[in-house]
Amino acid sequence: MHLSRPNFIHEVELPKAYRLINHGPTVLVSSAHDGRQNVTAAAWNMGLDFTPAKVCVVIDKSTLTRALVERSGEFVLSVPARKIAKQTLQVGGASVCKINKFDAFGIDTFAANRVAAHLVAGCVGWLERKVINEPHNQLPMIFSSAR
Amino acid sequence: MHLSRPNFIHEVELPKAYRLINHGPTVLVSSAHDGRQNVTAAAWNMGLDFTPAKVCVVIDKSTLTRALVERSGEFVLSVPARKIAKQTLQVGGASVCKINKFDAFGIDTFAANRVAAHLVAGCVGWLERKVINEPHNQLPMIFSSAR
Repeated sequence: MHLSRPNFIHEVELPKAYRLINHGPTVLVSSAHDGRQNVTAAAWNMGLDFTPAKVCVVIDKSTLTRALVERSGEFVLSVPARKIAKQTLQVGGASVCKINKFDAFGIDTFAANRVAAHLVAGCVGWLERKVINEPHNQLPMIFSSAR
Repeated sequence: MHLSRPNFIHEVELPKAYRLINHGPTVLVSSAHDGRQNVTAAAWNMGLDFTPAKVCVVIDKSTLTRALVERSGEFVLSVPARKIAKQTLQVGGASVCKINKFDAFGIDTFAANRVAAHLVAGCVGWLERKVINEPHNQLPMIFSSAR
């Protein structure tokens, strides 16, 4: 049935429109290259395909995480539990230029099976991923398949 | 602190790995072109940028929705409330070759402001979007900015 527009609808500012969708868990993105490690938070992450298994995560181009992920071609997604909610907020807001986030916020880790980046302790799920090269893609996004 | 690997971890089958992330709301994708309308469900959707506001949604290449979205260059995302959970499952599982989904499942709609596709009633949020052309992208994905 085609209805008239409800009068309770109001417009959302466009830069806040993303809040209407994908309010699933923020993940932690850990990365490593040439002896350097980092961890950050990424709210924009999703599945992309079943077989081969692919996921998609938005990582800003200006970040150390993006550089480490592109240079190493791999990364880890850790799905945080409530008990590390505070650290998840902290690593997402902090600049790595000034601090080592693992030490500064008491982020514990353990070794991955297939990649150099570490898995974050206190999480309920982990994905070890390798990057799929998408050279034409200028968006702040990393496609990955399972490593 | 670097810990030893917890012994409670077990491997997830790769085609099910996507279940670990982005378990936010599935959205309804409505589309229209040349007098034809359709609606489907999409679990993989997320924000992509703030300004200009962009979102990203995975729509399989084999679907009528994908064809209508590509031909019209626009679509609507509707964020369903619990009361239409059943219809959300139904439109996601049904093939449009055999039925008109709106009639078959009692999906009510109302007119959008800026696009031809309709907004689905019984939802808590709506995004009217135009497609960003990404000709090099071979993935089953549509990038969009606000219309």
